[in-house]
Amino acid sequence: MSEQTEPSSPVVRAIRASRRELARLITRIENHAAGDDLAALYPFTGRAHVIGVTGAPGTGKSSLVNALARHFRSQNLTIGIIAVDPTSPFSGGAVLGDRIRMRDLAGDPGVFIRSMATRGSLGGLARATGDVVRALDAAGFDRVLIETVGAGQSEVDIAGAAHTTLVIEAPGLGDDVQAIKAGILEIADILVVNKADRPGVELTVRALRAMLDLGHRTERIAHHGQIMELPLALPTTNPQVDEASAWQTPVVQTIATSGDGIPDLADRIAAHREYLVNSGTLALRERRRVALELAERLREALLARLLAQADPAALSALVDRVLRREIDPASAAQSLLESG
Amino acid sequence: MSEQTEPSSPVVRAIRASRRELARLITRIENHAAGDDLAALYPFTGRAHVIGVTGAPGTGKSSLVNALARHFRSQNLTIGIIAVDPTSPFSGGAVLGDRIRMRDLAGDPGVFIRSMATRGSLGGLARATGDVVRALDAAGFDRVLIETVGAGQSEVDIAGAAHTTLVIEAPGLGDDVQAIKAGILEIADILVVNKADRPGVELTVRALRAMLDLGHRTERIAHHGQIMELPLALPTTNPQVDEASAWQTPVVQTIATSGDGIPDLADRIAAHREYLVNSGTLALRERRRVALELAERLREALLARLLAQADPAALSALVDRVLRREIDPASAAQSLLESG
Repeated sequence: MSEQTEPSSPVVRAIRASRRELARLITRIENHAAGDDLAALYPFTGRAHVIGVTGAPGTGKSSLVNALARHFRSQNLTIGIIAVDPTSPFSGGAVLGDRIRMRDLAGDPGVFIRSMATRGSLGGLARATGDVVRALDAAGFDRVLIETVGAGQSEVDIAGAAHTTLVIEAPGLGDDVQAIKAGILEIADILVVNKADRPGVELTVRALRAMLDLGHRTERIAHHGQIMELPLALPTTNPQVDEASAWQTPVVQTIATSGDGIPDLADRIAAHREYLVNSGTLALRERRRVALELAERLREALLARLLAQADPAALSALVDRVLRREIDPASAAQSLLESG
Repeated sequence: MSEQTEPSSPVVRAIRASRRELARLITRIENHAAGDDLAALYPFTGRAHVIGVTGAPGTGKSSLVNALARHFRSQNLTIGIIAVDPTSPFSGGAVLGDRIRMRDLAGDPGVFIRSMATRGSLGGLARATGDVVRALDAAGFDRVLIETVGAGQSEVDIAGAAHTTLVIEAPGLGDDVQAIKAGILEIADILVVNKADRPGVELTVRALRAMLDLGHRTERIAHHGQIMELPLALPTTNPQVDEASAWQTPVVQTIATSGDGIPDLADRIAAHREYLVNSGTLALRERRRVALELAERLREALLARLLAQADPAALSALVDRVLRREIDPASAAQSLLESG
């Protein structure tokens, strides 16, 4: 962080100088009480490379995050870790062995570890995670690792905050291929087969390669396309970018507990970062992310404004009419729109 | 369906008379082109009991849905089945054995099976699923079964359309307990341990019972509470209802392939329905669901209205300013609000 000039923003100076201040800011973010601070630190974001790590329980995500963090540290990079996985040792859901493995990181001043509460709305969690990423970015961390349990839409949302998303599999989980089917593959920039010393690793690797060939690419585009369905006035395509052909999702084998394959994985992450920048994909994704966030904020603010003007008794009466089947939900919403 | 009087609505008459008309309506729903029909059939909804069935791949969800449907048929109840699970035989992701098991259902005029595409926005999928439930309800089906793969927020959303949600586990999946941790337990009205002839069944049952005791109830309330965070003017509590103490989530053991435990499971479902009605919980949940749907529809409509009025070039320029860190996303959204 030393290469940076002293920032003009007090909050940014504070979180760079003190871990306690950073932790307090993150708590304010979780409590939706950091509005001004987030605005103040935003100009100091955009420097960190954000790496999402997701996968089903039992794939060894946490050990992999741990091994990657140590590798980055050996390159003198500073690391922020956000655990959104309730089963992660970083967030407390650990077996003792994991906790012990984490200790060396926890004591390192170049590493900041924070777990996010998974209670409450997952949508809200995704928003808060994105803001915590910004806080760590502004605090000067070179790499931010987001660990999430591979379980559906929340991960897709949270992956939206990552530049490079690793999807972790492991041999012999039985249902890993089906889990992939359930929609995680489309967010993978790099597929990692961890616990590669286990029997069946070749089978898992082959299954993943087959799926990558089986046109999951199109789903990936559809996934991005879905973000582009936003009614914001943005280019729906970028002639400079052809994601489908430009990046071939690699399948990397690792043994996180021994460190085997970790340097190779780190190289792939660096290569993906380079691809994102050189292909113009990074700019396109950032643009999509901003459009998505603006649309989301506007939805909430517009609804709040409408309902603040509405008469609570009338609202309740309208809900009653819908419940009595006197009016359908769409017409009820329309009547509120016209009153607002 | 015979006990019902001839409906005045042409679309309802059509979908009750012809499976092809029903299938066409569902296709229009999936294509977001059924607005008027949905309004017309809405007064004829509210009769079916909607049962959500979710669980990780490998738990035997589809066989259980199949077994439950056959049990209901033996009671002369008509059944609609919606498969939102990409790994479900109902939606095509089946091994041959499953498909053969499903055949007897597919040929039964008292059973209607429809699989929902899982491409695109999961939020949109949840909305469409809710509308398809209404179509099947208005078509006169006594029970509607929604099968979803247990994988996070999408299931929580889709479960919002169900009156009674079954969460399926199976012994020896290894990560089933962790999967539960990941947030599925809080939506369970009934926990089913399927494949109960497998070794380790007692361990799974004990683990689930332990979790139920370990205050996951509070999470369940939080889950409902989260829906109540809607700014709609609704009672946040109902003095007549104490969900936490009123319904004790049972753990039921089944062997779907042989039918063992299915009658018991059906009895539990009926008991839950009775509890929902008698405790006033059904009315409270319906109220929450309507409030949630109104809020969701208003968010989308309000955003569309604002952006329709906005200048595309100005919007694009604003996104560029955010990308250049000249303005933060919250302030950018605020400026759009004030312009709108």
